[in-house]
Amino acid sequence: MKINLNADLGESFGAWTMGEDAALLQVVGAANIACGFHAGDPLVMRRTVRTALDAGVGLGAHPSYPDLQGFGRRPMQMAPAELEAALIYQIGALAGLAAAEGGRLVHVKPHGALNNQACEDAALADTVARAVRAFDRELILLAPALSELQAAGERAGLRVAAEVFADRAYTDAATLVPRSQPGAVLHDDDAVLAHVMRMLDAGGIVSVSGKVMKTAMHSICVHGDTPGAVANARALRAALTSSGWRLTDLRATVIC
Amino acid sequence: MKINLNADLGESFGAWTMGEDAALLQVVGAANIACGFHAGDPLVMRRTVRTALDAGVGLGAHPSYPDLQGFGRRPMQMAPAELEAALIYQIGALAGLAAAEGGRLVHVKPHGALNNQACEDAALADTVARAVRAFDRELILLAPALSELQAAGERAGLRVAAEVFADRAYTDAATLVPRSQPGAVLHDDDAVLAHVMRMLDAGGIVSVSGKVMKTAMHSICVHGDTPGAVANARALRAALTSSGWRLTDLRATVIC
Amino acid sequence: MKINLNADLGESFGAWTMGEDAALLQVVGAANIACGFHAGDPLVMRRTVRTALDAGVGLGAHPSYPDLQGFGRRPMQMAPAELEAALIYQIGALAGLAAAEGGRLVHVKPHGALNNQACEDAALADTVARAVRAFDRELILLAPALSELQAAGERAGLRVAAEVFADRAYTDAATLVPRSQPGAVLHDDDAVLAHVMRMLDAGGIVSVSGKVMKTAMHSICVHGDTPGAVANARALRAALTSSGWRLTDLRATVIC
Amino acid sequence: MKINLNADLGESFGAWTMGEDAALLQVVGAANIACGFHAGDPLVMRRTVRTALDAGVGLGAHPSYPDLQGFGRRPMQMAPAELEAALIYQIGALAGLAAAEGGRLVHVKPHGALNNQACEDAALADTVARAVRAFDRELILLAPALSELQAAGERAGLRVAAEVFADRAYTDAATLVPRSQPGAVLHDDDAVLAHVMRMLDAGGIVSVSGKVMKTAMHSICVHGDTPGAVANARALRAALTSSGWRLTDLRATVIC
Repeated sequence: MKINLNADLGESFGAWTMGEDAALLQVVGAANIACGFHAGDPLVMRRTVRTALDAGVGLGAHPSYPDLQGFGRRPMQMAPAELEAALIYQIGALAGLAAAEGGRLVHVKPHGALNNQACEDAALADTVARAVRAFDRELILLAPALSELQAAGERAGLRVAAEVFADRAYTDAATLVPRSQPGAVLHDDDAVLAHVMRMLDAGGIVSVSGKVMKTAMHSICVHGDTPGAVANARALRAALTSSGWRLTDLRATVIC
Repeated sequence: MKINLNADLGESFGAWTMGEDAALLQVVGAANIACGFHAGDPLVMRRTVRTALDAGVGLGAHPSYPDLQGFGRRPMQMAPAELEAALIYQIGALAGLAAAEGGRLVHVKPHGALNNQACEDAALADTVARAVRAFDRELILLAPALSELQAAGERAGLRVAAEVFADRAYTDAATLVPRSQPGAVLHDDDAVLAHVMRMLDAGGIVSVSGKVMKTAMHSICVHGDTPGAVANARALRAALTSSGWRLTDLRATVIC
Repeated sequence: MKINLNADLGESFGAWTMGEDAALLQVVGAANIACGFHAGDPLVMRRTVRTALDAGVGLGAHPSYPDLQGFGRRPMQMAPAELEAALIYQIGALAGLAAAEGGRLVHVKPHGALNNQACEDAALADTVARAVRAFDRELILLAPALSELQAAGERAGLRVAAEVFADRAYTDAATLVPRSQPGAVLHDDDAVLAHVMRMLDAGGIVSVSGKVMKTAMHSICVHGDTPGAVANARALRAALTSSGWRLTDLRATVIC
Repeated sequence: MKINLNADLGESFGAWTMGEDAALLQVVGAANIACGFHAGDPLVMRRTVRTALDAGVGLGAHPSYPDLQGFGRRPMQMAPAELEAALIYQIGALAGLAAAEGGRLVHVKPHGALNNQACEDAALADTVARAVRAFDRELILLAPALSELQAAGERAGLRVAAEVFADRAYTDAATLVPRSQPGAVLHDDDAVLAHVMRMLDAGGIVSVSGKVMKTAMHSICVHGDTPGAVANARALRAALTSSGWRLTDLRATVIC
């Protein structure tokens, strides 16, 4: 009865701010911190590391394709060796800032288009897993449950934390319903809560048609970038706690 | 009778190549590797780390102002906290790629305009030293002999390697004669060799007027980016060896 | 009795938004549009051009040092030929997007650190003026009244619009009181209005000590990036109108 | 009996040089000039414009995906409105530098992955054509013969120059034989010359199997970035001239 909550953080850049990091850090146990390629400059990264450490939240690297203008959401094709090096670069940069603040990275979660593509493309997923392992084989790879990325992490001998999304509906193939379709994103507290509870009770992803796909679930991804998202995450956390779930860091859920 | 040779390496970027790294790695004992802000993309960095490790050459980070188009040669003013984070980011990124190749960083040497400014400006030099120490207090700071940067490194409690330049003439203030003046850069093998030997024999920097400024000298900086530079460096190495100097890595010269 | 109001616009970038452009475009007659080097990506630039044209507001280029992370506020040293080319590049890019929307540029106003430095440094100011003239000698250079930039524009044979700042206090040298000093920035509507009226009545810049420095004033710079700034600008506009001033585009104030 | 030769130029960046532009400008009649997104900084662009104008070579914009590290060779997906604005931005920037040197753009040719994808993808090709038309409907779109990009240009009402590649073998679908296959790239002078003459004589693209696909051919693309490429281009030019072809600018071949 242990579960982790994770969220993307540190997505400001220079003079531009984004997200409600301080509030979200009171809710989650794992922070996916942008590494400068889609968001997050060095100073933002360092501050995010420090506030996460102060809040007792586990540090994770959230590396991306090099795409600041597109916020890492543009699908891109990079040669495997280039991508692998670019990922290690970002993870190392964040690990450096973590070290400067007396912290250590716990996990890695790819961002945006890279994450989406790696969930479908086994070769790309292998490149991501190879980068994580090359940097530090003790790092946890945080990957969507039942994705190619999860499989690649396991093939690479990494510890893998499987995540589900609190506010996204699933297809019968265990993939996310595209945002272009109605009902793809759950907005109100009750719907999000019911969705999460249904999956936790069923021990797997539950699709919009009611199909259950059994899977370990170590972490639930919540968001802080839309109106009401933080309140939403806070409500989910309260409901999980009152249902007897213990909210922990990633390590505790992966190892158990 | 131990001395180190250092050089800037890994200054290619994407489709563009620069320098004769393979040849230079046969000559020097310390590699200052560009970290992506003035040169060196992640793939170039990883390859440079690997070839340096293969050649038994010590790895150093060569961080810069964020200035790809200007090759880090444009003077710039960054807030201390921003610069410190930017330096840790770069050092961490290179350390990550080093870890991926089974290596560890030995030293840090700032690049270009940042290095020049930090040699004159004590507050800026302190920011550089603070960044190095925050990342890893075991790293050696490689700094021009008798500069503010050397002093800042010592104030910060870092081990500091003092370097002199093989092919640059010095003023009576122990600073480099500006490139705009005649004789600022020594081009032929004999002149370079005589300049270096004069300083090693005198135990200090020898200016164009003949003034001797006593200083420890742990490393000699050579170049590989101009025609004949590698041949020049090779000749210097041979001459040093035949004069009884043992060419070592940085650690050996700093600790002794 | 004609005066122009100008403001910086189009300072969003990618996923990050900044400023209240729609509201500000109802207030000003000249838009200084970011050109991608400190803010404003191509899509933001095109949208800003379109909304400015829809609002009948004159288009101006607001070029900067290449410094996205620092929002163009970091002092930097670029070789004159490099800076000149970089400015023409930015002005041309915005002119291209203006042409695509059926518009034409009216003026150029440098941004941030570049503007500040060019107000003090005649050689740098000449480089800016040379860039504007090289691109199109019909463009108006919008420059702080009594600055080196104004003088350089006139030396270059450009039409120059002299601006004063609605919410900034002046020294006896006609420069801005540094933000670090108390009273440097005027925050409430009444103070801003009184400051502007005092200058318009006196026919020159009025310093904090009451010293009057006579100068033409073609435009007043207002801001939209701080809380209350747009309301402030709106109040100033109303007050000017009710005092008999006609608010026009830049061309009308410069030519008259 | 008129034909144009075109080549990519101005692909240096900052401290890095690439290509033999001076030599190539003596051979070609149309220069595709990099616009800063995959290569070419503002200063390189201005110098390239000036040397092209001095050599009497027509100026063309060679815009790209935003991908400096990947030299614009990485396939990428951008939203149509974003890509359109990014292309206008680049064309405008080059047009600005051309204006500063007293010149005007004649044509636009997309670079690298963008060009390749636009040759196959009609919607993407329409976005490219829309950008060119939005900036200036008098510009010529230089597109591979029989490609979707050519078709899109014609749909948009642009003048289109159809090009063939001097040193690349074609499939029966009029596409380039992938570089991964043997014989994809022709290296020696005689093979290149025979290939070009065969196509000019046949009045169309001739595939490796000998299939002829009739098409107008206004321009032949030559390269300057591989060893011997300039000599190759020079030999082709001489052979064309001695075969009675008149080498002209793009306008002359498109209009005739």
